Amino acid sequence: MADKMIKKSEVAARIQVLAQSEKVENSDGKGDMVPRPDISNAVIRRLPRYFRFLRELIRAQIFRISSSELSKLMNVTASQIRQDLNCFGGFGQQGYGYNVNYLYTKICEILGVGEAFQAIIIGAGNLGRAFANNTMFNKRGIDVIASFDINPLLIGTTYNNIPIYDISELEEFCKNNNVDIVVLCVPKVAATDVAEKINSIGIDAIWNFTGKELENVDPNTAIESVYLGDSLMTLCYDLCRKREADAKLAADKLSEKENK
Amino acid sequence: MADKMIKKSEVAARIQVLAQSEKVENSDGKGDMVPRPDISNAVIRRLPRYFRFLRELIRAQIFRISSSELSKLMNVTASQIRQDLNCFGGFGQQGYGYNVNYLYTKICEILGVGEAFQAIIIGAGNLGRAFANNTMFNKRGIDVIASFDINPLLIGTTYNNIPIYDISELEEFCKNNNVDIVVLCVPKVAATDVAEKINSIGIDAIWNFTGKELENVDPNTAIESVYLGDSLMTLCYDLCRKREADAKLAADKLSEKENK
Repeated sequence: MADKMIKKSEVAARIQVLAQSEKVENSDGKGDMVPRPDISNAVIRRLPRYFRFLRELIRAQIFRISSSELSKLMNVTASQIRQDLNCFGGFGQQGYGYNVNYLYTKICEILGVGEAFQAIIIGAGNLGRAFANNTMFNKRGIDVIASFDINPLLIGTTYNNIPIYDISELEEFCKNNNVDIVVLCVPKVAATDVAEKINSIGIDAIWNFTGKELENVDPNTAIESVYLGDSLMTLCYDLCRKREADAKLAADKLSEKENK
Repeated sequence: MADKMIKKSEVAARIQVLAQSEKVENSDGKGDMVPRPDISNAVIRRLPRYFRFLRELIRAQIFRISSSELSKLMNVTASQIRQDLNCFGGFGQQGYGYNVNYLYTKICEILGVGEAFQAIIIGAGNLGRAFANNTMFNKRGIDVIASFDINPLLIGTTYNNIPIYDISELEEFCKNNNVDIVVLCVPKVAATDVAEKINSIGIDAIWNFTGKELENVDPNTAIESVYLGDSLMTLCYDLCRKREADAKLAADKLSEKENK
């Protein structure tokens, strides 16, 4: 596949090849060197959900599925599914449905599952250790190779075979290892400092669980922040609203009775 | 405050009061009994972010802030802030700015922080135990009162003073305790069964971390699902795209040089 992605560390080695390939213009005449399909952000955001469902189909040994079956399963219109999946090739065959394996592989490719990314966890507290033990990374082709903390009781130990190092060793470690992603699980108060450190070392991606919005980070860094507290509050709000509606309904009924 | 919310278990006791109050019509003549401000869903989704920033201001002992200062801090336009906060009263005073404490209290009230909700964690694995130790709940006025698992090694122990019970004791526990929220941390394969159980017991809110979409759940149940894997894949995609852009830029430069 020509759209195989390139790691920063490999850029130098690949430039020659890319420069060569640029001389051969693509069929659209634009001369794009890395013909990654042009997929809208909205579709990209939906792809991980397809990944989850397709993965379950494969586990259940279902290797072919029609768009209408997939539609029922995922509770999305069949036309939405066709539209989403046509973005990268339209490989559903009329009457035969989709090849689940092929679709899964293609989505993995687009989302970077095959990139063999390596991740480290900074902050080996409860959440950090929970992630160290989570299969979520393996499922997505990511290797968690180390964890870092400042707690002397943790440093030098391992958790799920992942060593916990002193944060002071971070820079040296990153020189000797390919670190693609940082899972940032430090307390909120330490977030800004550690993010700056990560940035100065040149790590490209931060999965941010600190609850702190990371500013002053190089805009070229990929950041995905998960605000668990925000999600919890949204749940509380929904709960309140539903209970209010229940109470209103009950009172309405009582009042109806009284008026009769 | 008349918009204090009502728990299901208290409904019976409150109905009399509500039925009384219904007889006194509100000023808008519609006779709403629980005059909770009518706030759009988009604004509600933004309120937890205000909660986070206001909380930090209070910690930094900043008790008054202008909309332009808040705008800079939160990286939102001042007009957006005014629009959001006017939804529930417009208590920013021209020239004086917002009263941080009042704003914080009001947002807490709307989102249900003052409701003294009680939560249990089902699934005392790594993620469940991480939550048992997390201050996120306390900050939002939620008490985590128990945890449940099927692992005999965990049952009977405590974690951060939270007892871990056998899942078979769940129903009995919920009869004797007010359980508002379940934090669902069981493995994906167990998700559907446990969600049905929760439903049959009548718990109103599920914070779902199983990675499984909960169907067949009473539509009156508040559900907030967090798909951590989806978030991780979005990060990987962003990382790939940024690296591609870097490689393209480098190749372009090289090619420019060659063409000179």
